[in-house]
Amino acid sequence: MSQSILLLAGGVGGAKMAEGLLQSQFSNSLSILGNICDDQEIHGLWVSPDIDTLTYTLTDRIDTEKGWGLKDETNRTLDALNALGEDTWMYLGDQDFATHIYRTQLRKQGIRPSVIAKDIAQKFGLNTPLLLPTDDIVQTRVNTDKGWLDFQSYFVRYQCQPQISEIVFKGADSAKATTEALKAIQDADIIVLAPSNPIVSIGAILSIPGIREALIQSTAYKLAVSPIIGGKTVKGPADKMLQALDIPCNALGVAQCYQGLIDLLVIDQQDQALCEEISALGMQVQSTDTMMHNRADKVRLAEQLISYCPTETSMSGSESI
Amino acid sequence: MSQSILLLAGGVGGAKMAEGLLQSQFSNSLSILGNICDDQEIHGLWVSPDIDTLTYTLTDRIDTEKGWGLKDETNRTLDALNALGEDTWMYLGDQDFATHIYRTQLRKQGIRPSVIAKDIAQKFGLNTPLLLPTDDIVQTRVNTDKGWLDFQSYFVRYQCQPQISEIVFKGADSAKATTEALKAIQDADIIVLAPSNPIVSIGAILSIPGIREALIQSTAYKLAVSPIIGGKTVKGPADKMLQALDIPCNALGVAQCYQGLIDLLVIDQQDQALCEEISALGMQVQSTDTMMHNRADKVRLAEQLISYCPTETSMSGSESI
Repeated sequence: MSQSILLLAGGVGGAKMAEGLLQSQFSNSLSILGNICDDQEIHGLWVSPDIDTLTYTLTDRIDTEKGWGLKDETNRTLDALNALGEDTWMYLGDQDFATHIYRTQLRKQGIRPSVIAKDIAQKFGLNTPLLLPTDDIVQTRVNTDKGWLDFQSYFVRYQCQPQISEIVFKGADSAKATTEALKAIQDADIIVLAPSNPIVSIGAILSIPGIREALIQSTAYKLAVSPIIGGKTVKGPADKMLQALDIPCNALGVAQCYQGLIDLLVIDQQDQALCEEISALGMQVQSTDTMMHNRADKVRLAEQLISYCPTETSMSGSESI
Repeated sequence: MSQSILLLAGGVGGAKMAEGLLQSQFSNSLSILGNICDDQEIHGLWVSPDIDTLTYTLTDRIDTEKGWGLKDETNRTLDALNALGEDTWMYLGDQDFATHIYRTQLRKQGIRPSVIAKDIAQKFGLNTPLLLPTDDIVQTRVNTDKGWLDFQSYFVRYQCQPQISEIVFKGADSAKATTEALKAIQDADIIVLAPSNPIVSIGAILSIPGIREALIQSTAYKLAVSPIIGGKTVKGPADKMLQALDIPCNALGVAQCYQGLIDLLVIDQQDQALCEEISALGMQVQSTDTMMHNRADKVRLAEQLISYCPTETSMSGSESI
């Protein structure tokens, strides 16, 4: 039997890595643990950007140019909301609205968010388990020179321009990890931390009490892919956030975020010079081409990651370091 | 100063009558009291068909062919909800969805439905007061050979086919009339009952405790227009409902519904033969062409109705009979 793989994934980078694994020879043994801390209510509807990006990407419905939202969208509902005086800074297409209306209705009926995410994924045709770290509401808040902002306001409305001084996951303290997430971590042979934002994507998942501990206790081989290449993020505000938190804005900074948590950090080939410093943090390091421009890149990177992992035979009876 | 006119209006027939009055010389003295008993939650959103039909009609945004909904609609949100497994028997267009999303959001914030209806009307450009009989939830339910149905299921989903045995307004007993509606009834010089369904449109408004009593106590001149012409309804299930309740399915039946409540019943010219029987119920009767095919018809009928009313001078110091 093939080794069971669990991917921790945020938004666009996470979805690309998920696509690579899903299209690879390892697709049958894949589960995905997504981020719900970017979720928020917009126009009274519950929007779950990272989870939808995963669902839409993995079912070929994603707007590939933007990296999020559905392709072939129209925005008549949004325009009509705007005419009603609503502030429509968050683009939501007409088809995408259906997802949010449906999700909001089911939440109101008391159905667990985990069950809703699975249901929506299946309705879109995705059968790979898509798990939530918690069914509770936990939301990323950033303290900036414009005051406290929810993540979508910082990211979409203000285009990551405000200066960040602090990042918190509101509600994390009292949140409860889902049994599905804890079991998936326990059962995994390989755990991959996608090249997502180490703070507000992977860090957000790890903020849920029990998740980080389960990861540390897991005997799986754990590896992360650095989302920072040549000191810059491919997409999103990871570089700005690392700087704001006084963490080096490079693969070494990513290694610091994951110190004590992973066995291996995979960095881009152009960051090879950092290998020694990363090794000194007590983890293995591999460098390769980590850019994922197209599906072939994604599959190649996915298969390369798995090739770095010990085989089942070599792992049996031994704990990973 | 012109006499103040209050129109009690249901769906399509009520909206046509409202349009006639709004386009007439009496537009400045008009207020409209709508029906909220057809409201219901669809896909988790609060839909208010009669109120929206009034707003859309009076701002020239109505789909004139259907008589409800917005013109130039698309249905990508509905199609996407259908793909998610939702039963989409109720047509809701993409622009119309914005109205329901907006309304639902404001209701959730605890804003009074009356205030929301006024706000939406104003955002569409309607400045004529559009009042709700109550801010509470009251819903028409029909007992049929298919069991108890909400009104939209009976009307839209089952196309008025089920045999009706009973009609109730669920929640009416404990509902509270709005002060705006009671004041409008008290202040009116002329009260017009639109050619709407006397049972589930006008009757629904009258089911709210205090509304019927206020109408009876009002010194306004009260007239109704029969929605039944030649024993048939122009649109909707009024004829079937009268039959189900053992009320004659003609203008005389409408007169029976409004006995003790109105001063004058306006019937269609083809129903002249019923004048004597209607008079015997203690109300005046006038016959004219009541069909409203186009705007000119609507305005002509509106002005004719007002011409039947006593002038301010003739009314002063005297109670209407």
